[in-house]
Amino acid sequence: MNESLVDRRTILAGLLVSAATLSVSGRIARAQSDPLPSWNEGRAKKSILDFVSAVMREGTPDFVPAPERIATFDNDGTLWCEQPMYVQLAFALDRVKALAPKHPEWKQKQPFRAVLDNDIAALAKAGEKGLVELVMATHAGMTTAEFAQIAGDWIASARHPKFNRPYTDLVYQPMLELLAHLRANGFKTFIVSGGGIEFMRPWSERVYGIPPEQVVGSSIKTKFEIDKGKPTLIRLPAIDLVDDGPGKPVGINSHIGRRPIAAFGNSDGDFQMLQWATQSSGKRFGLIVHHTDAEREYAYDRKSSFGKLDKALDAASANGWIVVSMKDDWKRMFRFE
Amino acid sequence: MNESLVDRRTILAGLLVSAATLSVSGRIARAQSDPLPSWNEGRAKKSILDFVSAVMREGTPDFVPAPERIATFDNDGTLWCEQPMYVQLAFALDRVKALAPKHPEWKQKQPFRAVLDNDIAALAKAGEKGLVELVMATHAGMTTAEFAQIAGDWIASARHPKFNRPYTDLVYQPMLELLAHLRANGFKTFIVSGGGIEFMRPWSERVYGIPPEQVVGSSIKTKFEIDKGKPTLIRLPAIDLVDDGPGKPVGINSHIGRRPIAAFGNSDGDFQMLQWATQSSGKRFGLIVHHTDAEREYAYDRKSSFGKLDKALDAASANGWIVVSMKDDWKRMFRFE
Repeated sequence: MNESLVDRRTILAGLLVSAATLSVSGRIARAQSDPLPSWNEGRAKKSILDFVSAVMREGTPDFVPAPERIATFDNDGTLWCEQPMYVQLAFALDRVKALAPKHPEWKQKQPFRAVLDNDIAALAKAGEKGLVELVMATHAGMTTAEFAQIAGDWIASARHPKFNRPYTDLVYQPMLELLAHLRANGFKTFIVSGGGIEFMRPWSERVYGIPPEQVVGSSIKTKFEIDKGKPTLIRLPAIDLVDDGPGKPVGINSHIGRRPIAAFGNSDGDFQMLQWATQSSGKRFGLIVHHTDAEREYAYDRKSSFGKLDKALDAASANGWIVVSMKDDWKRMFRFE
Repeated sequence: MNESLVDRRTILAGLLVSAATLSVSGRIARAQSDPLPSWNEGRAKKSILDFVSAVMREGTPDFVPAPERIATFDNDGTLWCEQPMYVQLAFALDRVKALAPKHPEWKQKQPFRAVLDNDIAALAKAGEKGLVELVMATHAGMTTAEFAQIAGDWIASARHPKFNRPYTDLVYQPMLELLAHLRANGFKTFIVSGGGIEFMRPWSERVYGIPPEQVVGSSIKTKFEIDKGKPTLIRLPAIDLVDDGPGKPVGINSHIGRRPIAAFGNSDGDFQMLQWATQSSGKRFGLIVHHTDAEREYAYDRKSSFGKLDKALDAASANGWIVVSMKDDWKRMFRFE
């Protein structure tokens, strides 16, 4: 063996060792940096990390191939604040006020009159039928492009009454970290919300990193038309899908076509989604965000008008769903903090 | 400078130069390798390559950011063979025959009798109403999981009457190359088919590289139920969406929530999808696959029962849609060849 050959081998070996060392230390650095820094140590955080590690472990029974790593998230109360009322309801009420000059008849007609008079009791009395009327009057009768513009403009300017901040600031930082951690591990993350699909899509990518095609929500029917030579989609005053409660597995099947292996919710509206995602073979994960922090956010569950959590809370333990106490499990609440 | 140091430098420099050379020649090899080898040189091929290059060119008016690079593909007649009848119709007819022993009444009842008697004339007479009846009888009344199994099993065993091969072999090789070329350039590719969404999903990923969540199609309603303690989705005998003609932009909006910048079809059922994708600002692309090869496949257009191409063909030139002649533009037809 001549000397130059020894040199080459030594140098090559050295380079390889350096590369391996760099790679190993890189991996250690990654493992040591906490992907969920806004979560306090405890059962909830540990179970998330354990679940993600488990489905990544090739050659074990818990392994799930990347294309099947589908995770679905409720929006209102799970990813952002839903009190003192659903954000989209605040939007509908603002729209009624903005459109009122063109509808003088609303001054005499419920539930519109209740909105214009800020009469919450009368509004509550109008019930679901009244709410649907409000949605149809404010969400239909325009093109999809016009509605996206209106919803996008509103979300950019409206402010939460308690925090005096844009609603998109009132997104839960721990959930953003959870979304990112799942995606970093090959998951595809979807929103599956009772809220309107077209209400969320204009900002879901910017705020959550979830593109429009991964947003599932309630919808009204649309119709294709050529209007003044231009193709348009008109929003019709007719319900297409109520993506809530038993409608969530229906929406998931329609839009995703795979059964999620993980689901995240906060109310009885997420009960069936949690069942659908977790009551099947293979490694599964269900999580309920429990609003327990009256100081930093709101505390509510069984008796709330928005985001009522009762049946699903009772069923959590038997189903192995993790119940997150926002007060105890979350170090930091909102992304703006 | 001692000799061993010179040696190390020389060797390191050598390694770096080799690496750079490898990388450059790799890039040249890639640039020179044709992404569409089954396409003959000509206007169609050139326009595809030009379009893809144009939307990738940052800093130019034609540039389209990756998340907005949405391309939608019809399935029947665009990605796979739709003659002598839609594959899904062949499936429905086979299902009627398989289920007939449980339905003795079908022997006397149209359109089922026509199917059992192989009476094509009577079947044609049953029209769209008859077809819907066949679909409901064969596609509903089971869980989504059961239907996926039935459709998947059938597609694995059924054979095309002319080519005596599985239908999934009768996928157009030039279109597979086009799908791959788009994806390699940051496009997200979707199927938008008049065919059943749940009929395509069991095999779309394997055959086209298109995952279930990127398949849009016609659908029937489903209902969530707990059956013997297990969550299930039951397929109901009720139409949800007819994803054809003016229903295609509706399906695109519902499932994707963005307007495609490129659309690919072959029949009048794709007319509105082509309008929706191309009649807007920014760089756009529309393409029609014209079945002109009676020898290697089938030749049909204005008078065909399946995949009729008439109105869209007349409108192609004014809209700048590329019309591909399968006979002239495609060097190779099917992926099995």
